[in-house]
Amino acid sequence: MGEQSYVKEITDKSKDISRWYTDVVLKAELADYSPVRGTMVIRPYGYAIWENIQRDLDRRFKETGHTNAYFPLLIPESFLLKEAEHVAGFAPQVAWVTQGGEEELVERLAIRPTSEAIIGYMYSKWIQSWRDLPVLINQWANVVRWEKETRFFLRTMEFLWQEGHTVHATPEEGEEETLRMLGVYKAFAEESLAIPVVAGRKTESEKFAGALRTYSVEALMPDGKALQFGTSHNLGQHFAKAFDITFLDRDGQRKYAWQTSWGVSTRMMGALIMAHGDDAGLVLPPKVAPVQVVVVPIGMKETGDDPVAQLAAEVEARLRKHFRVEVDRRTEYTPGWKFNEWEMRGVPLRLEIGPREVERRQVFSARRDVRAKRAIPMDNLEAEVGALLDAIQSDLLEKGRRFMQQHTTTASTLSEFKRALVENPGFVLAPWCGNAECEARIKDETTATIRNLPFDQPAAEGKCICCGQDANIIAWFAKAY
Amino acid sequence: MGEQSYVKEITDKSKDISRWYTDVVLKAELADYSPVRGTMVIRPYGYAIWENIQRDLDRRFKETGHTNAYFPLLIPESFLLKEAEHVAGFAPQVAWVTQGGEEELVERLAIRPTSEAIIGYMYSKWIQSWRDLPVLINQWANVVRWEKETRFFLRTMEFLWQEGHTVHATPEEGEEETLRMLGVYKAFAEESLAIPVVAGRKTESEKFAGALRTYSVEALMPDGKALQFGTSHNLGQHFAKAFDITFLDRDGQRKYAWQTSWGVSTRMMGALIMAHGDDAGLVLPPKVAPVQVVVVPIGMKETGDDPVAQLAAEVEARLRKHFRVEVDRRTEYTPGWKFNEWEMRGVPLRLEIGPREVERRQVFSARRDVRAKRAIPMDNLEAEVGALLDAIQSDLLEKGRRFMQQHTTTASTLSEFKRALVENPGFVLAPWCGNAECEARIKDETTATIRNLPFDQPAAEGKCICCGQDANIIAWFAKAY
Repeated sequence: MGEQSYVKEITDKSKDISRWYTDVVLKAELADYSPVRGTMVIRPYGYAIWENIQRDLDRRFKETGHTNAYFPLLIPESFLLKEAEHVAGFAPQVAWVTQGGEEELVERLAIRPTSEAIIGYMYSKWIQSWRDLPVLINQWANVVRWEKETRFFLRTMEFLWQEGHTVHATPEEGEEETLRMLGVYKAFAEESLAIPVVAGRKTESEKFAGALRTYSVEALMPDGKALQFGTSHNLGQHFAKAFDITFLDRDGQRKYAWQTSWGVSTRMMGALIMAHGDDAGLVLPPKVAPVQVVVVPIGMKETGDDPVAQLAAEVEARLRKHFRVEVDRRTEYTPGWKFNEWEMRGVPLRLEIGPREVERRQVFSARRDVRAKRAIPMDNLEAEVGALLDAIQSDLLEKGRRFMQQHTTTASTLSEFKRALVENPGFVLAPWCGNAECEARIKDETTATIRNLPFDQPAAEGKCICCGQDANIIAWFAKAY
Repeated sequence: MGEQSYVKEITDKSKDISRWYTDVVLKAELADYSPVRGTMVIRPYGYAIWENIQRDLDRRFKETGHTNAYFPLLIPESFLLKEAEHVAGFAPQVAWVTQGGEEELVERLAIRPTSEAIIGYMYSKWIQSWRDLPVLINQWANVVRWEKETRFFLRTMEFLWQEGHTVHATPEEGEEETLRMLGVYKAFAEESLAIPVVAGRKTESEKFAGALRTYSVEALMPDGKALQFGTSHNLGQHFAKAFDITFLDRDGQRKYAWQTSWGVSTRMMGALIMAHGDDAGLVLPPKVAPVQVVVVPIGMKETGDDPVAQLAAEVEARLRKHFRVEVDRRTEYTPGWKFNEWEMRGVPLRLEIGPREVERRQVFSARRDVRAKRAIPMDNLEAEVGALLDAIQSDLLEKGRRFMQQHTTTASTLSEFKRALVENPGFVLAPWCGNAECEARIKDETTATIRNLPFDQPAAEGKCICCGQDANIIAWFAKAY
């Protein structure tokens, strides 16, 4: 193998993860630059991963009682203005429509940066009574935020996402929903993307513009930087008051409703690429891989009764019933070239079939993640392929957990904190007094931010690493994407 | 039943189909008005139908070799200007972004009214050699067209659609693809939506702005007006020349590529509602109904061992394996009220379960379409429910075919033509000389337009109904939505 050089070379991941990332995105044909600054094109292979992500998440949303709907792309400026914190947070990022056809608009329209405002308006029409609650709606949509610096998937002016928007009769139900969806994101990240995440509450200065409380799940990337994977907001009654979402409760009283919103986006694709990839390209967890198994016939002759071709066809027919499988029958490329290309594309499992495999009624398997190779007898094909895919899925998560553990440090003073960020970049768990000034000062001095505050807080108190005052909060700090 | 009045009354369909349509859309909660002129909100029940439509079509696209991708929402004005006919056709309908955040844009950006321009630009980057062809990409997306008059689903400023964009090495392959996708639309309309359509070629004056040839499938609505259901365009080399999409062919020559594009939109939802509905509301074909079977327990007691509740649970568990089923266990409504509500929502099959059904180990079924009722023994539940749903699906199509046949007239003179439009509104098949002036004059005098030109043209010639000259073209005329 490998005697024919594979043209699509990529930067070493350990040398320059940023260039490696761009190389992989372009060369695995996940996405491409578009002529509009800050936007990208999601190419078929990248979009196929997104479709698998969508299908998986959508199932989880429906299992938790949600339905999908679709709200307009364009939001009148006056709607954004109704919730003061919301408009302050988003106005600098809005793309404005000022002309429709030949018509100059009287009121300019925002391309949605998020949909709380338009959905809040509709909910005020739809909700009258406690009988109408809860409302559990999700939307799959594109949004636009005018960003200065952009990177494939991680930060783009337009991105695809889902935004859940729910309404409840009590604050307890709202909080329960907020945490339920945070849990869905955590489960999805770990079970399907094989990316471990830490869940917790955002600080006041990092919460969503207009929220009462924001929770997040955060992943750790190989360079030790955290990536905000998803957020779930308890909106309290902020938008209900701004948009007059009230209901007649069982007790005959008219009350403001309690709301949540929560979202994940194509940004997850960035986490997926960075978390698992290596110097040969992408490594995809089987659950979201567009092709789970690639079959490469070797020394196949172009005659109908070629035994290699026949065995490849049998393997394809049998595996297709259970897995996403592709047979690479192209004649213009050598097997070595094909191995490299499918490795670049991160296909979890490769099966090679040549004359020796025909003779022994077996296929030769190669795992993408750990590159382990072994023969699989045809008698046991489906079961062993299934077991290998399961092993790849769980080993990737396990590897991620070890990485996170190894790159999580505790610090009790600012000098320990700074040393940890240099010597072992990753999460640092450290005590914080809860003061926004300390939070800002730590960020200024170290560029690390509080990612979130874990749910399990220690009973014992420490001293804030910044001001030295008593601190009863432990925070996940990290530099972040 | 029916002793309790159902509050959500709707206009009689035969009296005023336009008001009936709006009533049904609002009262079945398919969609709602939005505060942005010309846009709408697709509510969960309407969106669930759209999800079924998407899933079905997406499968058909993938079976014919296509993959999905995603291209940017915003298109620089200069791109739209590259294909002269294209910009002339779409410029009056474009919503323009002129400001991003605080930044005044140097070049304004169009919200895509369709994506040929941006996709053409990307294809010119991606396509180098015959080996890169064909390119078979589809996109599910929202588009915006600044419309003056709008109606739920049928014509909205923003709508959801799919747009296929393919590239081929030869004109023959381009034409073959154009017709293949027209065939996919026809099969989908008839097999899944139970709406018969006529397929044919659009006249020069009705073709897509920038196309070489446009084909359409057209459905006939109950008021005798045609509705353009989907279009498939052979783009020839128009966009390839505008965007420099060339490839090195097998013969060593650099050549312009051949392209197609094709699309259907949420407009189909309008056809679906109008085609099948009746005075009691929606009637949905089982293949796209969000709920295929609704179970209404009657006289159920709220105790764990109530035999009606037990039978309903058994029915639910058994049917859930095969069908989309819902049990209406609400206690605040009477059975009669529930019957009316589920009829309004067009659920194809209702199963009633009361003490008599428990006693006889049966359920009592009522078809939504023809209102036929009969008992189904529990022993044979799955098979009979399946057979009933199949019968509803095929009977709806058959009914549509009969309607179209009854409302299709032939005319050989303009006076016959006018009489047909009055006496039996629907399609009129009539000879046409092929001259755009005659086409325009017929439209001016009758408001009927040529919907398309059928593929099977008669061998014998007639006389144009407008100018009386020899006509070797037979056209499908109709008034249209």
